[in-house]
Amino acid sequence: MATGRYIALEGAEGCGKSTQAGRLALHLDAVLTRETGGTPIGQRIRAILHDTTVTDLAPRSEALLTAADRAQHISQVVRPALASGRHVVSDRSVYSTLAYQGFGRGLAIDEVRRINDWAIDGCWPDIVVLLDVEPSVLSARMADRELDRFEREAASFHERVRTGFHQLASDEPERWVVIDGSGPEDLVAEQIRRALDERIGL
Amino acid sequence: MATGRYIALEGAEGCGKSTQAGRLALHLDAVLTRETGGTPIGQRIRAILHDTTVTDLAPRSEALLTAADRAQHISQVVRPALASGRHVVSDRSVYSTLAYQGFGRGLAIDEVRRINDWAIDGCWPDIVVLLDVEPSVLSARMADRELDRFEREAASFHERVRTGFHQLASDEPERWVVIDGSGPEDLVAEQIRRALDERIGL
Repeated sequence: MATGRYIALEGAEGCGKSTQAGRLALHLDAVLTRETGGTPIGQRIRAILHDTTVTDLAPRSEALLTAADRAQHISQVVRPALASGRHVVSDRSVYSTLAYQGFGRGLAIDEVRRINDWAIDGCWPDIVVLLDVEPSVLSARMADRELDRFEREAASFHERVRTGFHQLASDEPERWVVIDGSGPEDLVAEQIRRALDERIGL
Repeated sequence: MATGRYIALEGAEGCGKSTQAGRLALHLDAVLTRETGGTPIGQRIRAILHDTTVTDLAPRSEALLTAADRAQHISQVVRPALASGRHVVSDRSVYSTLAYQGFGRGLAIDEVRRINDWAIDGCWPDIVVLLDVEPSVLSARMADRELDRFEREAASFHERVRTGFHQLASDEPERWVVIDGSGPEDLVAEQIRRALDERIGL
């Protein structure tokens, strides 16, 4: 039996990842999942990470909590699904840790990468779709949302995260697809499907 | 102002660490703390780790959760206390991760050590007191306790942890003191005080 492919959607809050992940999973008949919070244990970790009353979480502790979530998720959800031949579509992945805790928090990216490589035991996404949206568009989309701990971060934090995602994408162009996420939902979905078809024949 | 000293008590469940840590902190007028659970965030992490309904926690996720606890604890409690000139007495430390997740769960000890060195940003205990107690004595002491997730592990797990502690102690004899924890509480307390006096003049 063929091994499934592991596809991650990445980008800022409000970029449309969750919507597009859902549509893509339906299209591919893939397992739809997410990080953080893709397992019961991950949901407890996510509750800490997103809690707006948590104002003093040390950057390294935050990074290790996300790594713990990823370790559990890969072990319990992603790897078993891939091994059974299913494709996996994940709303965020280990790359969010590199972008948010590495670039965003200013932790040494090599060390964050190394720890996360151990956390996921080398199970990196086969392909990463970055939905890129201008901050001004994101702000408008988020205007009615109740913001969580990350969403409340300063604009400069989100700018570093965005720069980080672009850096990661340009470091591994064979693995990343950058798509303009500001267009109509149907158009973005079509661009994602076309990119996956071209890249990995899905 | 002189920097305080960081003293950790280690050993199996039921070895008397908590009692002796309390007595020692009183004797030294030290900050008394613990891992896991020495911070509000750490208490939420500890709740996951010790929850007996959690039966499927991946070993790497467990290790990263303990590392996240240690990162928060060192950053928020230990380092500020030491910097202000206070001594710190901690019921468990980063060495418990090496013993439990490294030796106990069979994770590669070098990698667990490296991740934890990053978690604590190099702030290892100055001295570690291992309270060693025979498993049969521990079993008798634990007979009336409601056992948590670690305490319910098989005897073979606890045997690996014990072997691990002895290995860690013999790897760094200048940092570790091994004390027989099976004697009367007052005698053990006296042995700990004498050892600290000899080693670091406290």
